[in-house]
Amino acid sequence: MAEDKKLVEDITSMDEDFSQWYTDVVLKADLADYSSVRGCMIIKPYGYALWENIQKELDRRFKATGHENVYMPLFIPESLLQKEKDHVEGFAPEVAWVTHGGEEKLTERLCVRPTSETLFCQHFASVVKSYRDLPKLYNQWCSVVRWEKTTRPFLRTMEFLWQEGHTVHATAEEAKEETIRMLNVYAEFCEDFLAIPVIKGKKTDKEKFAGAIETYTIESMMHDGKALQSGTSHNFGDKFARAFNIQYTDRNNQLKYVHETSWGMSTRIIGAVIMVHGDNNGLVLPPKVAPTQLVIIPVSPHKEGVPEKAREVFQRLSGIVRAKIDESDRMPGWKFAEYEMRGVPLRLEIGPRDLEKEQAVLVRRDNREKIIVPLAELESRVPQVLEQLQQSLFEKAKRMMDSRIYTAGSMEELESTAANLPGFIKSMWCGSRECEDLIKDRTGMTSRCIPFEQEKLSDRCVCCGKEAKHMVYWGKAY
Amino acid sequence: MAEDKKLVEDITSMDEDFSQWYTDVVLKADLADYSSVRGCMIIKPYGYALWENIQKELDRRFKATGHENVYMPLFIPESLLQKEKDHVEGFAPEVAWVTHGGEEKLTERLCVRPTSETLFCQHFASVVKSYRDLPKLYNQWCSVVRWEKTTRPFLRTMEFLWQEGHTVHATAEEAKEETIRMLNVYAEFCEDFLAIPVIKGKKTDKEKFAGAIETYTIESMMHDGKALQSGTSHNFGDKFARAFNIQYTDRNNQLKYVHETSWGMSTRIIGAVIMVHGDNNGLVLPPKVAPTQLVIIPVSPHKEGVPEKAREVFQRLSGIVRAKIDESDRMPGWKFAEYEMRGVPLRLEIGPRDLEKEQAVLVRRDNREKIIVPLAELESRVPQVLEQLQQSLFEKAKRMMDSRIYTAGSMEELESTAANLPGFIKSMWCGSRECEDLIKDRTGMTSRCIPFEQEKLSDRCVCCGKEAKHMVYWGKAY
Repeated sequence: MAEDKKLVEDITSMDEDFSQWYTDVVLKADLADYSSVRGCMIIKPYGYALWENIQKELDRRFKATGHENVYMPLFIPESLLQKEKDHVEGFAPEVAWVTHGGEEKLTERLCVRPTSETLFCQHFASVVKSYRDLPKLYNQWCSVVRWEKTTRPFLRTMEFLWQEGHTVHATAEEAKEETIRMLNVYAEFCEDFLAIPVIKGKKTDKEKFAGAIETYTIESMMHDGKALQSGTSHNFGDKFARAFNIQYTDRNNQLKYVHETSWGMSTRIIGAVIMVHGDNNGLVLPPKVAPTQLVIIPVSPHKEGVPEKAREVFQRLSGIVRAKIDESDRMPGWKFAEYEMRGVPLRLEIGPRDLEKEQAVLVRRDNREKIIVPLAELESRVPQVLEQLQQSLFEKAKRMMDSRIYTAGSMEELESTAANLPGFIKSMWCGSRECEDLIKDRTGMTSRCIPFEQEKLSDRCVCCGKEAKHMVYWGKAY
Repeated sequence: MAEDKKLVEDITSMDEDFSQWYTDVVLKADLADYSSVRGCMIIKPYGYALWENIQKELDRRFKATGHENVYMPLFIPESLLQKEKDHVEGFAPEVAWVTHGGEEKLTERLCVRPTSETLFCQHFASVVKSYRDLPKLYNQWCSVVRWEKTTRPFLRTMEFLWQEGHTVHATAEEAKEETIRMLNVYAEFCEDFLAIPVIKGKKTDKEKFAGAIETYTIESMMHDGKALQSGTSHNFGDKFARAFNIQYTDRNNQLKYVHETSWGMSTRIIGAVIMVHGDNNGLVLPPKVAPTQLVIIPVSPHKEGVPEKAREVFQRLSGIVRAKIDESDRMPGWKFAEYEMRGVPLRLEIGPRDLEKEQAVLVRRDNREKIIVPLAELESRVPQVLEQLQQSLFEKAKRMMDSRIYTAGSMEELESTAANLPGFIKSMWCGSRECEDLIKDRTGMTSRCIPFEQEKLSDRCVCCGKEAKHMVYWGKAY
C-alpha cells in the first residue's frame, strides 16, 4: 500500500469543500454526532476525551494562577438578567426561557444561563464586605445555552460546554492585570498544548462583550484562512459593580466599588484543533492533547512472536505515553487508515522482519515520516518523537498563518485581497464605527482585533483616510 | 484554652436542632450558599473542592471498569420524554419547561433534563447495529433539574450536579451484572473513600426508579438516625429498548433488543459526608476526600525560628499530603476553631517549646487526640495518622449505624420503635404494596431496601401476618 495514497476515501477533500470536510472529520473521527434536539450535539467518547484533556490542562493553569472552582445556578431570573443594561441588550434576544415548573406557570421567567456574570455579581455583592475579602478569583465549568439560528458541531451550538472565570478586585489596575494575565494563560495554552499559534489583541468597541469596558481576544487562523476567536477575557471596570452594588470597605474605611473581570474558553476550541491541524486523511492531534498518543499495530500477527512482542512493547510504553494496541482481526491497512482518520499522532508497526532486526517502525501522523527505532530504545525515542511532532505542528501552523497575513494600504487593496486571498489583512484604522461597518459591507470581514504588537503601516485610515489610531487585523470569522 | 471546650459557639448543637445544625455547618464551613434562584444553591470553593475530589475518584473507578465519558444535550423534546410510559409518568410532574427561545415561541416544549435515559436511548438506537457494537459503557457528568417543592442545600435542590451512567448490553445477564457491578463501585467508594458504611439492597417495586425493572440502592444512616439513599443502579431489561427500538444483529444474524442500565450518584453525597461524620464543632472530613488534609499553625509566631520552621515543615509535607499553612495575624485559638469547623482532619501546631524539643504536635479533628511527633519523623507519621483517622471514622460510623438497627416482630413493636428510637428497623414483609403503605402511614417510615444480606427473622409479614417473602429495612428518609 502506497503511503502517500489517500487512505480514507470517504472524507471530502479540503480544497473541494472545506465545510463538508469539517463535518466529515467530526462525524467520521467519532468526535460528535447530531441529536434530535435542535442545535445541540452529542459529544461522543473520543470527542469528550479531547475535552477532558483540555479541561485538565486549563484547570491546572487556572489553579496555578490562584483560581478556585465554584458552581452557580443554571437559571437566571429575568429581573436579575436585566440589571446591567448593555449586558441584557446583548443576551436577551438569544436565551432560552423556562416558563413552567412541573404543572405550574412561573410568576417570573427564568432564562437558561447564556453566561453567568449576573449570578456571580449577585453572589459577590453578598460575600464581599472588606478589602480583606478581595480578590475573589473564581472559575466555573458548565454548559451554557444561546439560541443560535444556524449551528455547526463545536463551532456554534445552541448548548456548549465551557469555563467562565469571574473575578473581583480592589482596584482598576488589578482587574486589568487579571484580564491580561488570563489572556496570556489562554495564549500559552493554545500555543504550548494545542500547537495553535494565536494573535493577541483587543476587540474594537463594536466587537466587545456586552457590558465590558474592554474585551481582549486570541484569534487563530483556520486552514481555510478564516479566523476563530479562541478565547476572550473581559474587563468590566466597575460597571457591573455599580449595577449590582458590589462595594467593599477599604483600608481607610471608605466604601469603594470592586472591579471585575470574566474570561472564557469553550468546546469551540476543538473546532480550532480540527481546522488548524487536520488534513485530507482526517484529524491530526497534537500529542499533548491526544487521548491516544501512540497506537501499536502488529503486522502479520499470525507470525510467531509478533503478538507477544507487540504486547510487550505496549506494556513497556503504557506508563510513558498514552498507548493503545489494536489486535482486532481487521487488516493492518484498514487500521492505518482508521487511526490516521482519528488523528493518533504516532503509530508503531511491528512485524516479523522487525522482530528479526529487533526494531519497530514509527510512523508520524503529520508527515508520514517513517522512523526505524531499535526496540531497546523505544522508551526514550517515542516521547522524543512525540515532542518533535508537537513542535512541528506548531511551526507548520505558524508558517501557514504568517504566510497568509496581508497588508492593505487602500480600500481597493483591502477589497481585492479579501476577495482573492484567504487569510487576515492588516491595515491602519481611524477608530470609527463607520469605517468598521463599511469595511464589513465591502469585504465581509470584521475586525478581529487591535493586536498588542502594533505596527505603523501608515498615518492614514485605510477606509476614510483620516488620521489612523490603530493597526487592525481584519478577517472572515467563524 | 481548654481543648474540650466548644470552640465555635455559633453552630447550633446537633441534639438541640439537627436540621439547624446541618444548615449552620453548610453555611459556616463555607460549603454552599443560597442563591436568588428558587431551590438552587451556590456551591462555594470549599464545597466544590470536595465535589472535585469525589468526581476524580469516582471517575477513576468508572474508567477502571471500562466506562467512557460523553455529553448529551441539556434539553429533551417533550415527545422524546413521552416515549417510555412509566418513565414520563415519574418525571413529567417535576420538570422545568422551556417554551421560548429568544423572542420565538417553540413549536414543541423542551424540558430541562431531569435524567437522560431518553436521550441516551435515542443515541443508542442510532449507533448500535451489531453485536460488535456492544456493550456501550457510557457515563456523563452534568447538572440536572427537578422541580422540587422544598429544598435543602446538597440534600434536595432543584438543580444538582451528578453523574449518570448509561450502558447497553447484548443480554439480560450482562445488564444485571453491570447493575450490580456499579452498585458495588458505589458501595466501595462510600466505604473506602468517604468512610461511610452502607447497606446494599434492592428497592421494592413502590420505591424503584420510573421505568426500571429493578433498582438497587446503597443506604446510609445519618447522625439523626435517618436514611440517605446514597447511590442507585437501575436495570431496565429491554423496556426502554422496546420503547426506543434499540436492536442489534447477533452472531446468528438475528435481530435482538439490547438490555440497558443506568446508575447515578450526586452532590447529595456531600450531605451524607456532613451528617455521618460532623459533630458539634462543625464538619469532620475523612482525609481521602478532604481538600486540605493538614493545616499547619505556628504558635507564638513572633518567637525566633517559629515561622521559618513552620514553613520548612510545610515545604516538606506539601508533596506528601494536601497541606496548608496559616500565617495570618489571627490568634491561634481562632484558627483552631476555624479549621475544626471546616473539618480539616489534622492540624499541626509548632511553637517555641516544640522547636526546643525538635517536635511538633498533631491534633486529630475527630477525637482531638494530641500526638507528639519528632520533626524528623513527620514524613512518615503524618500519612500514618491520616490513615488511622480515616479508618476510625469508618469504624465509628459503622458502630453508630449497627447500634441503631432494630428488629420488629409485630406492628406494635415497629410503631413504638419508629416513634422512640432513631435508626433503621428490620422486619419481615409479605411483598405487598398494601402492607408497605400501611407501615408508612403508621410509622412515617418507607422501605429503604430489601438487603442482599437477608436474615430470616420469622415466617410472617410484620404487618399482615401472611407468609413473608423478604426481610426489609425501614427508615425515615431524607
